[in-house]
Amino acid sequence: MTTPATDLTAALTTCLDGRWAETRHRIRTQVDPTAALVQAEGSLEEKRATTTAALMQLAEQDLAGMGYAETGGARNDVGGTVVAFETIAALDLSLTVKMGVQFGLFGGAIASLGNDEQHRAWLPPTGRGELLGCFAMTEVGHGSDVQSLETTATYDRATDEFVIDSPTRSATKTYIGNAARDGQMAVVFAQLITPDDDSLPEGIEDDDPTHRGIHALVVPIRDDAGQPMAGVTLGDNGAKGGLPGVDNGTISFDGVRVPRTHLLDRFGSVDAEGVYSSPIDSPGRRFFTMLGTLVRGRVSVGGGASSAARAGLAIATRYADQRTQFDGPDGEVTLLDYRAHQRKLLPAIARSYAFAFAQNELVENLHEIQTAAPDDHDERAQRELESRAAGLKALQTEEANRVLQLCREACGGAGYMASSGLTQRRMDADVFATFEGDNTVLLQLVAKGLLTNYSKAIGSLNMTGMLRFGATQFSGVVIERTAAKGFVNRLVEVARRRDPEDVVMDRAWQVECFEFREKHLLETAAQRMRGAQRGTETEQFAAFNDVQDHLLLAARAHIDRVVLEAFAQQVEECEDPALAEVLDQVCDLYALGVIEENAAWFLEHEHMRAAKSKSVTATINALCATLRPHAVTLVNAFAIPDEWLASTLLDGQDDAGVVRQH
Amino acid sequence: MTTPATDLTAALTTCLDGRWAETRHRIRTQVDPTAALVQAEGSLEEKRATTTAALMQLAEQDLAGMGYAETGGARNDVGGTVVAFETIAALDLSLTVKMGVQFGLFGGAIASLGNDEQHRAWLPPTGRGELLGCFAMTEVGHGSDVQSLETTATYDRATDEFVIDSPTRSATKTYIGNAARDGQMAVVFAQLITPDDDSLPEGIEDDDPTHRGIHALVVPIRDDAGQPMAGVTLGDNGAKGGLPGVDNGTISFDGVRVPRTHLLDRFGSVDAEGVYSSPIDSPGRRFFTMLGTLVRGRVSVGGGASSAARAGLAIATRYADQRTQFDGPDGEVTLLDYRAHQRKLLPAIARSYAFAFAQNELVENLHEIQTAAPDDHDERAQRELESRAAGLKALQTEEANRVLQLCREACGGAGYMASSGLTQRRMDADVFATFEGDNTVLLQLVAKGLLTNYSKAIGSLNMTGMLRFGATQFSGVVIERTAAKGFVNRLVEVARRRDPEDVVMDRAWQVECFEFREKHLLETAAQRMRGAQRGTETEQFAAFNDVQDHLLLAARAHIDRVVLEAFAQQVEECEDPALAEVLDQVCDLYALGVIEENAAWFLEHEHMRAAKSKSVTATINALCATLRPHAVTLVNAFAIPDEWLASTLLDGQDDAGVVRQH
Repeated sequence: MTTPATDLTAALTTCLDGRWAETRHRIRTQVDPTAALVQAEGSLEEKRATTTAALMQLAEQDLAGMGYAETGGARNDVGGTVVAFETIAALDLSLTVKMGVQFGLFGGAIASLGNDEQHRAWLPPTGRGELLGCFAMTEVGHGSDVQSLETTATYDRATDEFVIDSPTRSATKTYIGNAARDGQMAVVFAQLITPDDDSLPEGIEDDDPTHRGIHALVVPIRDDAGQPMAGVTLGDNGAKGGLPGVDNGTISFDGVRVPRTHLLDRFGSVDAEGVYSSPIDSPGRRFFTMLGTLVRGRVSVGGGASSAARAGLAIATRYADQRTQFDGPDGEVTLLDYRAHQRKLLPAIARSYAFAFAQNELVENLHEIQTAAPDDHDERAQRELESRAAGLKALQTEEANRVLQLCREACGGAGYMASSGLTQRRMDADVFATFEGDNTVLLQLVAKGLLTNYSKAIGSLNMTGMLRFGATQFSGVVIERTAAKGFVNRLVEVARRRDPEDVVMDRAWQVECFEFREKHLLETAAQRMRGAQRGTETEQFAAFNDVQDHLLLAARAHIDRVVLEAFAQQVEECEDPALAEVLDQVCDLYALGVIEENAAWFLEHEHMRAAKSKSVTATINALCATLRPHAVTLVNAFAIPDEWLASTLLDGQDDAGVVRQH
Repeated sequence: MTTPATDLTAALTTCLDGRWAETRHRIRTQVDPTAALVQAEGSLEEKRATTTAALMQLAEQDLAGMGYAETGGARNDVGGTVVAFETIAALDLSLTVKMGVQFGLFGGAIASLGNDEQHRAWLPPTGRGELLGCFAMTEVGHGSDVQSLETTATYDRATDEFVIDSPTRSATKTYIGNAARDGQMAVVFAQLITPDDDSLPEGIEDDDPTHRGIHALVVPIRDDAGQPMAGVTLGDNGAKGGLPGVDNGTISFDGVRVPRTHLLDRFGSVDAEGVYSSPIDSPGRRFFTMLGTLVRGRVSVGGGASSAARAGLAIATRYADQRTQFDGPDGEVTLLDYRAHQRKLLPAIARSYAFAFAQNELVENLHEIQTAAPDDHDERAQRELESRAAGLKALQTEEANRVLQLCREACGGAGYMASSGLTQRRMDADVFATFEGDNTVLLQLVAKGLLTNYSKAIGSLNMTGMLRFGATQFSGVVIERTAAKGFVNRLVEVARRRDPEDVVMDRAWQVECFEFREKHLLETAAQRMRGAQRGTETEQFAAFNDVQDHLLLAARAHIDRVVLEAFAQQVEECEDPALAEVLDQVCDLYALGVIEENAAWFLEHEHMRAAKSKSVTATINALCATLRPHAVTLVNAFAIPDEWLASTLLDGQDDAGVVRQH
């Protein structure tokens, strides 16, 4: 407590910035915020132009392409690209998403799914911003259910080309970033169709062997003059709930031809004769593997949402530390001295720390897995990564929306003015809850992964029946251990050292609560599904549907536990006593916040008695008061430059540019 | 269940529309939606121009002024003006707020606070839209704390004028609707200062008798050419988080002079000599009484927010009833057949019904009180009205924000397109949580009213000490009875008729749970405050602060109970059995939803055991499935014209204008 605030801020920043601190620092100091920030009062076209120009600047400085330009490859600094996305998300989400579309989705798909020649041809101009591209997956008829996409890519042996078609109106690609204005090419996800193979026995049609499932092709959509290519129809999704700088649009295809070499063929190729081959035999596994390589998008989106939320917290907390309202014993009272205000902001700050540490751990895992030599490919680790990425994306984006709204309201009318810096962030973050995977669908995926793992572990549960309903994307084992497991095991093994009255502040008790909740929800979900494995398809669907809310809870409990372990590990590793003391309290606040939120569940399952539950609430109140003097330090440690926050609420300025008297 | 859906829809609409059904119908059929809807892609100026033109159209048709034009008075159809606001809120919130500023706040302040001559002078042109006005209360330094406003109005005997000044920069009026572009006059709230009265003993300065507290004056701010009047500085708040059609701005005054007759003098007048007089002696009571007349604004805002939420539910529910995703046993499954989706939309629909009935009851109360003969003025009823208005405003606006976000997410990417009709509503409704009273401040007011009442009832609690901290606005007795009380008493007196297993569906049990929670929270809050009445100011503030979260819970519990009683009464009065059956289930879903949300509290207070709590959740799931076939009927009964919803998601159209194949 005697550490000066500046030292404490720096120490906290070091913890939060983690392994790619240098990348974060470079971006914070080199990106020009005035050029990047979308101006609230401009027209849609002006906003798009701002964002496109800022994207070009990033490409020029190579602050986001992360090596596409020089190397033609994408595997050198995977973690760095995600951290770049996260860092820029504290500035402007239109630019962040535009950059994500260009480098992460378009460039990333080529890097992950293409061959060396394709890398050499397309990645350098992509990295330099000379080739702007789209990631054309979602269609009008299907968003979450990628396997049911309708666009087709049919091989024509006569010309050695693929012919791309949108056979129905619902096959139109939609919400595609870069499509309405800037995109020159698109990575198009389509059902691959190869010519009929005469060697097949007659009569086999149901399981049509010429349909090879979803594959990706690079398709030019605009010519050098910016006009749609022949057979391509482009539309504009127009104004949206946010992200005004991103030109989302529609694309449909009518007999559009591309050379055979435009198929990104890492997981499935077609030779000149039209013969299909793939290194992965099972079409299902092939599909999951292909989508699995795109996991970086989800990792980025979750981290980006949290980063935007931290910007909101920095604005609202600094405002609450200055703004006064209503008389108290010594003149007007500072907002942050009211319990109701502390209760809004401090638990949100604690959760932002928790997610930051969990995200850092996730990014390291991603980096290790995607930069490993091909021989070291660990299928289990890959599935676990996909599961964590899905779950953390869902919880982080949900929280970002909640927090940005809370911050806006905590600043009253001033928070509703665009000049507060809060409204555009709130509107932009909104879509993070449903893009790169709808949050409900993602949590369901997490739960299914856990159940699959569970069924393998106990060897008695065949869930191939019901587990097929609803979304299926990754499949296979999901491992329960986190990096912190060793430490957490020691923690839980330690007997309750403290006074039982004080147990809510005991990390071991907290971890044990999280583990109990996860385990119980998972076991009971498995029991319910096992009890309903027989019966007709309709009965099985009804049984799945009946357990759906239970599955979603289990997924949340799992991710909550992963997050707590990441935070607990961070506290454990901390060597500076002043830093450790504050981090420990913030971790308590996070853990107790989750327990309080789920108090009904713990009480229902008799894991907590009424007195303990009340004690959790009282302890949260006390922690808020204890941490209140550190509140500004905690948000300053996010190290977001003032000009990036672009808020008139800071430094005693309000939205009208007037310095308050109090 | 054999009633055709159309009959059921009509019957539900009749219930929802209530006493002012005719007004609602007239507005739904006469307002031109294409002229009123703000276009998402226009510039800020274009949006403002659209809204102003639509306001003029309303004034021309006399659809919102409700008689200002002919009668010069405002007391003829109070309920009708609120219902007009509510009804138009289903169309476009910019127009709604603009109309609220013009007729409700500006016109309403003149009507409530002015004399007959002032009514005759200003109300007819206000009603006709020839005189556009502002309601200039909030300042940069003070929003919620109206008593601390800094603007002054000083009487100058020499010229028989008031001189209006903004003495500090924080005295600048801000967020004022109509100020940036259209307003010609403003009702300005200012500290009234009259000349020193020599009859006072010397040396009395602390309690400065020349400061008469907050009063309102009509001040011209723009000349006929649209230029600021001499001494008036006007600013533009620019882009906001929503409500783009409303021109919010700043106003400051430097020696601006208005005739003495511009003081709205119902509660305080100044004669030519500068002698102040008021029909209310106590400055505190005068202030509360003056603000109390403005309660209509809060009633309108709460109702308007719920109306916008219903529009969102109509869009999202109809979409969910058509949109399919992922394979089930019989092809792709409709979104609304998934439990997770039912769980999102159906409890929200139930809550929208509950708020609609509670709001109707509130509007009737408002109408009766504000149209009563002056001799029949019932101070207790007025205080109760203010309390209910504050509490229902807070809960309805909070819910509207939650629901519109939920609806947007429930429509996936399509819901994020402006063409869905959801995003602008979501952005606009946002500010309802903090304007016309910040929700946290309002709930605190409700709790204080309840405690004051409580202390009078038990006669042993002097809370003048701590109750002064934080916001104080209305004061005095708040009565616990609702209109449904007689019926509810009979209900609670009836012994548990049903199988105890089935008790969660028993209305008597539900009501008893709500009452227990309210009573217990209130009693314990009173105990905690009583225990801390002594001590220094600092200690008393700390004690108040320590109980603040408890107070907010008590206020919520009170309003929850008021809402349930209004709904239960509606079910009880229903004579059509098919209608009664559905309404009864919707009421169960509302009641159990609130109980589930507060399950931790009921378990902590041993009012519910674990098994009962689990049964509540299971019953909610079952009710969602039972009501699923009625979902579209329930939202169609909101009777919002399709063109008003302005959503491409309806009728099988998606945002790209493409009819889906499924």
